Amino acid sequence: MRKISSPLRNYKNIFTFLAIAFACSVLFVQCSERTEGTAELTELQEKALSFTSPMPENAFEEGMNKSDEIIELGRMLYYEPRISKSGTISCSSCHSLATFGVDQTPVSIGHGWQKGPVNAPTVLNAAFHKTQFWNGRARDVEEQAGMPILDPLEMAATEEHVLAVLASIPEYVERFQTAFPDQDDPLVYENVGNAIGAFERILLTYSPFDDFLRGNTNALSDQQKKGLETFIEVGCQTCHRGQVMGGEIFTFFQTPKEKETGQFNKGRFDFTQRESDKHFFKVPSLLNIEMTYPYLHDGSVWSLNETVNIVAKEMLSRELTPEQNQLIVEFLKTLTGEIPENAMKLPVLPPSTAETPKPRFDI
Amino acid sequence: MRKISSPLRNYKNIFTFLAIAFACSVLFVQCSERTEGTAELTELQEKALSFTSPMPENAFEEGMNKSDEIIELGRMLYYEPRISKSGTISCSSCHSLATFGVDQTPVSIGHGWQKGPVNAPTVLNAAFHKTQFWNGRARDVEEQAGMPILDPLEMAATEEHVLAVLASIPEYVERFQTAFPDQDDPLVYENVGNAIGAFERILLTYSPFDDFLRGNTNALSDQQKKGLETFIEVGCQTCHRGQVMGGEIFTFFQTPKEKETGQFNKGRFDFTQRESDKHFFKVPSLLNIEMTYPYLHDGSVWSLNETVNIVAKEMLSRELTPEQNQLIVEFLKTLTGEIPENAMKLPVLPPSTAETPKPRFDI
Repeated sequence: MRKISSPLRNYKNIFTFLAIAFACSVLFVQCSERTEGTAELTELQEKALSFTSPMPENAFEEGMNKSDEIIELGRMLYYEPRISKSGTISCSSCHSLATFGVDQTPVSIGHGWQKGPVNAPTVLNAAFHKTQFWNGRARDVEEQAGMPILDPLEMAATEEHVLAVLASIPEYVERFQTAFPDQDDPLVYENVGNAIGAFERILLTYSPFDDFLRGNTNALSDQQKKGLETFIEVGCQTCHRGQVMGGEIFTFFQTPKEKETGQFNKGRFDFTQRESDKHFFKVPSLLNIEMTYPYLHDGSVWSLNETVNIVAKEMLSRELTPEQNQLIVEFLKTLTGEIPENAMKLPVLPPSTAETPKPRFDI
Repeated sequence: MRKISSPLRNYKNIFTFLAIAFACSVLFVQCSERTEGTAELTELQEKALSFTSPMPENAFEEGMNKSDEIIELGRMLYYEPRISKSGTISCSSCHSLATFGVDQTPVSIGHGWQKGPVNAPTVLNAAFHKTQFWNGRARDVEEQAGMPILDPLEMAATEEHVLAVLASIPEYVERFQTAFPDQDDPLVYENVGNAIGAFERILLTYSPFDDFLRGNTNALSDQQKKGLETFIEVGCQTCHRGQVMGGEIFTFFQTPKEKETGQFNKGRFDFTQRESDKHFFKVPSLLNIEMTYPYLHDGSVWSLNETVNIVAKEMLSRELTPEQNQLIVEFLKTLTGEIPENAMKLPVLPPSTAETPKPRFDI
């Protein structure tokens, strides 16, 4: 073997050495930064991941019909006022996607300007709740969707009315057939809820906090991370847990307004008739909570800061300092997500025919 | 000069001759077909073009603000329920774009479940009407848009309420500034109408009949062309003229229901207080008429066929044969257009603040 030594070769060696040294030092700095970051944040992330998780990418369960046809039919029915008695109220009336799937009023206005008994929860991410409604009387969004249509205080229709409307419109008859291709007689009331439910399963909002849970340590600011620490330290995650930070369990709750007026909503009791369920309500999800005011099951509180204080006191017997309160609110705002573009498209509804039942405004 | 003559050259000449002859005959057949088609259709097109015209591509007048910023602000305000007293009614409530810009009910339901006095006209192509409302009390969509917000039967708000809502929401304050960059104080009530009007100016629907007027002779079927002939022969274009087939003049009209009940809407008189305007109504546009049932200013007739008979009799003293009636309806359906995709996008509305006035359900 020949040993080559020349000024040029020496220079080359020096340059190579310097280049490698520089690259290593850059790599070292990057690695140590990342490790430091990960170490610090993993602890907070791990804490968070002990009571919640990133929201799954898909809200359809195994074996569910998630065809474009059922989703589009659901979108149409979601905006369809003719399935209400008055022909003027649709799911969208109280759950507008322009206002994060709620109506931003204490209670909803329904048929004949009647007021609902509780605040309308958002449809966004509702598919991930373990039960539906404040009192949990529906097991999933499919069952839920069929109920306000028939509620005399809300859309005030009957199953017969809804099916008569849909059967009178050829495009709907055809769309039920393509949305439920395996069924001989797909135009049944249950499928109205099934289609609307399918549409609701695409109403998913991923938030900065979701990013954070997925590993992006920069998704939250320092202030927001402190807020998350405070949230955990105070114990909010005792109830607001699971993939949508709530929507799982029922707890006893009476609002300050209820206690003041003596007029109480009985909550889950209305559904189960069990004495032990009196004044029990589903713990609401905290996703998009910034946008889904007013708060509590009677919609009696407009301020998120005030709500945080009330709930901390009622549920955890904690008096928060103003700083704790503000930090928690800062964290809660990281749960505001983006509604997917595809969800924000209005459908074009097919025209009525001579057979379509007419709207009726009487109560 | 040398005369060249060879078998090859002869063959070439024959081929060239045959090719030219074939090309000429194809061209001749095409030309004669086209001439024949044009001759027949030009006559009908010319007849149509004597009372209407293709709808312009742009509804903004010279010098008007048509920036993306004003249109997006208008879209938001169109879906904004907080500018109503109850916080639950927006332009979209009675003019849903899912149902061709109307509510498909005889009269609209407003604040406190009160009923409006007349049927809600569509917002689609409304920018091309010479005046707005059945009684023409607004000169353009900008002026029109501000009125239902303040009507005690509709959104029941006050200018002060609307401006207080908008001023309380930082995103709106900013958006008014970018939508009206030349104004020192853009957050004034007039600009609410200006922005909504700008959004309405993109709500244009081009129909098969519009294609036909632009020269596509195949845009209408033979049956539909017969319908157009009948429409003209009966004299419907006497009133339903101009670029939206109506929306220009006012005529005396009493509906069969009004005559039966003795309860009359006074029409333009309510606006002008002139005796000669009693029971005068703006001739409605026929664009999308198939979709904007029920018909007449009191929304008392659901069937388009029946409406055509009533109007022919009341306005032209004509009793139509069932065939004439059906042909006219076939033609009217060619006026149904497509709503542009960009118009069907929902906005995301910015959240309220502590200063935002609260909804009030009282009448």
